[in-house]
Amino acid sequence: MTPIAPISSITPPKAVILLSGGLDSTTVLAIAQAQGYHCHCLSFAYGQRQEIELVRAKEIAARAGALHLVLNLDLGKIGGSALTTDQAVPKHRSLAEMGEKVPATYVPARNIVFLSHAAAWAEVLGAGDIFIGVNALDYSGYPDCRPEFIAAFESMLNLGTKAGAEGGKPFTIHAPLLHLNKAEIIRKGVELGVDYSLTHSCYDPDPAGGACGGCDACLLRAKGFREAGIADPTPYQD
Amino acid sequence: MTPIAPISSITPPKAVILLSGGLDSTTVLAIAQAQGYHCHCLSFAYGQRQEIELVRAKEIAARAGALHLVLNLDLGKIGGSALTTDQAVPKHRSLAEMGEKVPATYVPARNIVFLSHAAAWAEVLGAGDIFIGVNALDYSGYPDCRPEFIAAFESMLNLGTKAGAEGGKPFTIHAPLLHLNKAEIIRKGVELGVDYSLTHSCYDPDPAGGACGGCDACLLRAKGFREAGIADPTPYQD
Repeated sequence: MTPIAPISSITPPKAVILLSGGLDSTTVLAIAQAQGYHCHCLSFAYGQRQEIELVRAKEIAARAGALHLVLNLDLGKIGGSALTTDQAVPKHRSLAEMGEKVPATYVPARNIVFLSHAAAWAEVLGAGDIFIGVNALDYSGYPDCRPEFIAAFESMLNLGTKAGAEGGKPFTIHAPLLHLNKAEIIRKGVELGVDYSLTHSCYDPDPAGGACGGCDACLLRAKGFREAGIADPTPYQD
Repeated sequence: MTPIAPISSITPPKAVILLSGGLDSTTVLAIAQAQGYHCHCLSFAYGQRQEIELVRAKEIAARAGALHLVLNLDLGKIGGSALTTDQAVPKHRSLAEMGEKVPATYVPARNIVFLSHAAAWAEVLGAGDIFIGVNALDYSGYPDCRPEFIAAFESMLNLGTKAGAEGGKPFTIHAPLLHLNKAEIIRKGVELGVDYSLTHSCYDPDPAGGACGGCDACLLRAKGFREAGIADPTPYQD
């Protein structure tokens, strides 16, 4: 955990926060702000079926008083995921099934592509800190949410960028949720004043943005609130 | 160097080739084809002022009988480079100046973003091989053209992707030009039958696509042809 910046700091350090509009990344934004960072939120329109999350991300950033940039990506042309194609989103899977193998909702190299853009923006902003809401528990089997991946990305970044090459401030990838479970994340967010009614988790929302209640994201979210003993503000469809 | 695939191979291995339409990446395509790969070329419309290169990339891929995908990227919104903004492209720099520091034409994290997308496509295609035309000599000071960066990217990729996580075929990033100078690259390409009149190198072309003759890319290209003792098919403006 990075030490909290002193309140007297005149120019707060800039950070880029990958903000999907979901529960995890919204908590990360609150954590980065509590640590004293001047937060620059980054979201992507990548052809995801849950594009409603971008509306939520915009509102979350606005309420937090943080800057927000949305970039378009062409991941839909690449396909290979239930989130960017017509492929069905798996429903009502058990935790054991989620842990078994990489699921159909995995978007090939998505976090790699997202972090690459965060790095590009951080270089331009002169920010050395990038925050991402991955976590290694309750994570539905995504390879790009593992701690060893985050460490490897940081090393690569410090070699392949101008800041790294010129000996400037190297980049740090912060993944403050890495070793928390969903209930712990929610408790942390509630402590920090996060309004989870603004967040969207569902992979397969109805046209109005309502959560399906059966996809991995809905199941893990609902389980997290249950275990945290906090009411989930989401009205689920099933 | 990867061994040349046997001619009798019934299903040639698939590879993703980052193809800008320039001299280096066009040579890399020829090398990958000579090695027996089924080549899938990937180009990006990222708001670059030398967008003419995409027209050339399309023709180069078509003549090579290779597949070609062009993805849109929003790097222009991030800025920070003379290639994606109105910032002037440096002209008539000496080789010493080019080697001194990262130039204004550096696009923040560009190769990281490009390789990330190549990885995403490779995952979907089931390709384990990605080719990129970076070289550590005659390279105009870009940090994302260094061998240690390429090695670090490959390691990161094999941790952060489904193929890496499930123990499938890991990815190899091929940078066959890494240790060649421009003259050697050109000689290699000529041996393999590359038609360099199709390629575009200039960072600051006129509206018709004509090469300026003064930017780093033009200067390094012209010097390469001179040193190779081969006529440069490019008509330069100055």
